[in-house]
Amino acid sequence: YRPQIVLRPSNSFPSDTSSKAVTCLSASLSIISPLMAEFVSVFVTLFVFNHLDTELAVMHTASLNRSSILALTHAVCFAVFASAFKTVHLSPAVTLTHLLTGSTSQLFCLLIVPTQFLAGFLAVIANVNLRSASSLPPPPSLKHDLSIPWTNAAYQLIISQMIGSFLICSSHVSSFGVRREDDNHNGFILSRFRISALLNPAVPLFLATAIASFLSLIQSSVPCCPLQAFSLCAYRFVDNFADHSFTSHHIYWIGPIVGSLLACAICKFLLSPKYFMDRN
Amino acid sequence: YRPQIVLRPSNSFPSDTSSKAVTCLSASLSIISPLMAEFVSVFVTLFVFNHLDTELAVMHTASLNRSSILALTHAVCFAVFASAFKTVHLSPAVTLTHLLTGSTSQLFCLLIVPTQFLAGFLAVIANVNLRSASSLPPPPSLKHDLSIPWTNAAYQLIISQMIGSFLICSSHVSSFGVRREDDNHNGFILSRFRISALLNPAVPLFLATAIASFLSLIQSSVPCCPLQAFSLCAYRFVDNFADHSFTSHHIYWIGPIVGSLLACAICKFLLSPKYFMDRN
Amino acid sequence: YRPQIVLRPSNSFPSDTSSKAVTCLSASLSIISPLMAEFVSVFVTLFVFNHLDTELAVMHTASLNRSSILALTHAVCFAVFASAFKTVHLSPAVTLTHLLTGSTSQLFCLLIVPTQFLAGFLAVIANVNLRSASSLPPPPSLKHDLSIPWTNAAYQLIISQMIGSFLICSSHVSSFGVRREDDNHNGFILSRFRISALLNPAVPLFLATAIASFLSLIQSSVPCCPLQAFSLCAYRFVDNFADHSFTSHHIYWIGPIVGSLLACAICKFLLSPKYFMDRN
Amino acid sequence: YRPQIVLRPSNSFPSDTSSKAVTCLSASLSIISPLMAEFVSVFVTLFVFNHLDTELAVMHTASLNRSSILALTHAVCFAVFASAFKTVHLSPAVTLTHLLTGSTSQLFCLLIVPTQFLAGFLAVIANVNLRSASSLPPPPSLKHDLSIPWTNAAYQLIISQMIGSFLICSSHVSSFGVRREDDNHNGFILSRFRISALLNPAVPLFLATAIASFLSLIQSSVPCCPLQAFSLCAYRFVDNFADHSFTSHHIYWIGPIVGSLLACAICKFLLSPKYFMDRN
Ligand SMILES: [Ca+2]
Ligand SMILES: [Ca+2]
Ligand SMILES: [Ca+2]
Ligand SMILES: [Ca+2]
Repeated sequence: YRPQIVLRPSNSFPSDTSSKAVTCLSASLSIISPLMAEFVSVFVTLFVFNHLDTELAVMHTASLNRSSILALTHAVCFAVFASAFKTVHLSPAVTLTHLLTGSTSQLFCLLIVPTQFLAGFLAVIANVNLRSASSLPPPPSLKHDLSIPWTNAAYQLIISQMIGSFLICSSHVSSFGVRREDDNHNGFILSRFRISALLNPAVPLFLATAIASFLSLIQSSVPCCPLQAFSLCAYRFVDNFADHSFTSHHIYWIGPIVGSLLACAICKFLLSPKYFMDRN
Repeated sequence: YRPQIVLRPSNSFPSDTSSKAVTCLSASLSIISPLMAEFVSVFVTLFVFNHLDTELAVMHTASLNRSSILALTHAVCFAVFASAFKTVHLSPAVTLTHLLTGSTSQLFCLLIVPTQFLAGFLAVIANVNLRSASSLPPPPSLKHDLSIPWTNAAYQLIISQMIGSFLICSSHVSSFGVRREDDNHNGFILSRFRISALLNPAVPLFLATAIASFLSLIQSSVPCCPLQAFSLCAYRFVDNFADHSFTSHHIYWIGPIVGSLLACAICKFLLSPKYFMDRN
Repeated sequence: YRPQIVLRPSNSFPSDTSSKAVTCLSASLSIISPLMAEFVSVFVTLFVFNHLDTELAVMHTASLNRSSILALTHAVCFAVFASAFKTVHLSPAVTLTHLLTGSTSQLFCLLIVPTQFLAGFLAVIANVNLRSASSLPPPPSLKHDLSIPWTNAAYQLIISQMIGSFLICSSHVSSFGVRREDDNHNGFILSRFRISALLNPAVPLFLATAIASFLSLIQSSVPCCPLQAFSLCAYRFVDNFADHSFTSHHIYWIGPIVGSLLACAICKFLLSPKYFMDRN
Repeated sequence: YRPQIVLRPSNSFPSDTSSKAVTCLSASLSIISPLMAEFVSVFVTLFVFNHLDTELAVMHTASLNRSSILALTHAVCFAVFASAFKTVHLSPAVTLTHLLTGSTSQLFCLLIVPTQFLAGFLAVIANVNLRSASSLPPPPSLKHDLSIPWTNAAYQLIISQMIGSFLICSSHVSSFGVRREDDNHNGFILSRFRISALLNPAVPLFLATAIASFLSLIQSSVPCCPLQAFSLCAYRFVDNFADHSFTSHHIYWIGPIVGSLLACAICKFLLSPKYFMDRN
């Protein structure tokens, strides 16, 4: 039920000194790791609770319903496709996590990201054509009262997306892995194109995506996946090169990327060495 | 935990050339398959998000609540029966998927579809008799503002149901399989009546059905299963042969069937050969 | 992951005739069982959909919210306790199913039912004492418009509870089983006190209980468990022997019991012999 | 799929008398345990149902929506972090359960609790700095009508949190365990720092946390985790030493701690000896 972690054959006769050092390091890591995990978990849980408590106080029911349904829909798609196709990432931030933890090969990551951009762009084109009035799609926007400055709202969105992306990428690290049979395959091409697959139920991924997209949707019009914001901007830019949609587009990318880096750093370097040291 | 895929014994001494060709094909498929899966996943996810974003902007809370609860109820029934009885399909579109992927034998599929129609028809009769006023059930209908033409609304329903059916059928392909013990059974009758059973938890099926039925119910009065529309029309037709319910009945069938064909094509021919090529 | 079904050692040298008859019966059952399962599943799914469609049209949002939350709460308690304690039934109708399918011994069932009644009665006493104003709890009641007669509303409740109880009991039959190690235990007392335990995840049980309680709560003030109605009536009767709460109390019992009997009949005698014939 | 329970090697040649006594005790426990589990389950289920039935009658929709979303968010964080990091407790009451059932070593528990307090305090600081107006966070408060006295509302909160904490801690006891490989590790340091890890899916933990936090949030402004109340009070106290937030702070601690003690007592001493006696 747990991911089958691929073990590299370690060198069989280590010198006594290095072996003792490794044991000592391993021992201190097995104490520090759970404490670090506890710290991160409690901090994020209470931060999200306090943050939502403040935000929900000023939201209307209609807006709340809409954000909830869109977030659940996004999470359902993530979970259903991960369960059906096993290898999908669905966000450049997730691909970054798989690249840095080494679970998916670099060549594959370089191919997956353009595929994501292309699919996102075509989805916006399809939507515009399906809609009755063939108007331009609205650009991604922040939801902010006029009482608070724009930079403050952007800052809130980045923090929210960072936490959401951290949750999604942590779920990916703990649920995805390289299948044992794939690893034994000794073809040159296949070793170059290693890709991690979902080995566990997708329930934690569903829950993490739901909360991440909800956090993003109560601050803005886009979910916790920069592809949506990019596709809308790209469509508007292609339609009219004078369109200013890409101005301040970076605020939709900082949060997901920093969250992904944090998930790699914490899950790879700080967590229990028993489960993670062999993955390097 | 993963479906136990039935492997056919391959011929033991293939010629060198064919072996090399198969390896080469397998290698290129193992590169193309994940990219294709990524493309389909991102496209559908962002298409559904954009589509719902547009639709929810004009829906009332009462209508939204009703659609949500009906969609969840439909999904709960699908998941509970799949978990309890293991072999149920519950929709002709799903039976089509099982027929085309070869997981359920043709004879069985020919028996299952009439059973579904009969059960759906009897369900409508039972409902009419339970209701206090024994009025006719309303015919299936599209929810459309008068601002957009009827054909446009029908087109939106067909696209929505196509995507929903694709999600449900993909979940079936990845969650259902032929049990190993059934396959070894060498009786003539049993080999003719092979039926696939649920081998994994029903959570992805629940999520896929929920989103599919919700997408269908915000566009029309029926869920993403053509049996409901057919049963209502059939009851009205039997009650009064002059009833015009079956006019434009096809709009409730095109989406589910095309979605089912798409799921077969993508899951069977394009996805990772390691998991799917042995199933032919 | 699937329940470990306890196999009785069959007699090793059956006569040729009986063996052939069993094979023939087994073959026809393996054809009829999936068709019967399909029929029941489609019938119940579409019946519930049509029924809810009619009911939701006349419900208010506040009432809908309340029924949803109470139903979810009831289902969460069922799922959490089944996961934590493994052997709990939580309703006399479920105990009846376990008694008839033989998964729990008769002596145990006779002890479990009084325990349930006692716990339910004490829960009502505790609630009355916790409440600020120590007023009598309201008796169980039907929600019915004055436009339809009382008998019609009672009939709708019985049908709704019957379907709900059928779903819950079917989930129990497919998720619970006798652990292998318990069966090998050859103590006299232990064989007399065999009890089935949850062997699968509780997700289908959660979903079935949620829909069953929701169906019951939109027709009445009690969930799909006769203990709640009984406890309220018993408290009122003890408080004032002239209270008429027990008049027409039977309408809260017919549905759950008939649904339980149906689940036993269908799951034990009609479903796939491979999974059920060995359980007798 | 079930937790791999670590068995201690029992002494191989017990005297006849003690063996018979153990068998007899084991036999009576295997009868009493399921009955006790049934009693507790039915009592809590119907108590929670009746309690919510009374409470929901006087709640507004906006308040209900807010409590639901905050409770679900809290539960999602609990489930995602437990799935991703495996060893996290997230509440001092849960740490108390792990300490008393012996699944986590005393030294580790002494380190985990200060980590939780520190993380909670820093989360409140981070939230205050993110908020646009850098005002003080509101202190934890009871939601009570003026019609009922304050002590009555506090009593209701304590009972609600006690039940919620009992559900969460029971889920922890049944889902967490010591990994077999960890136990065989014979290092001195590692044996001192044994920590239990999540061995089962986190679904029951998610459901239990959701209902526990919902029960707490309809009575007060904090979820079923005393860290939130403590952190708010600590921040206000540090900001202004004359602040009276810590007055009556104990009402947020009694419920979780008593619920945790109850979960230990019931799960460890009363439940089926087959699953629990070997864990001492
Ligand atoms: Ca804001
Ligand atoms: Ca529309
Ligand atoms: Ca009614
Ligand atoms: Ca209250």
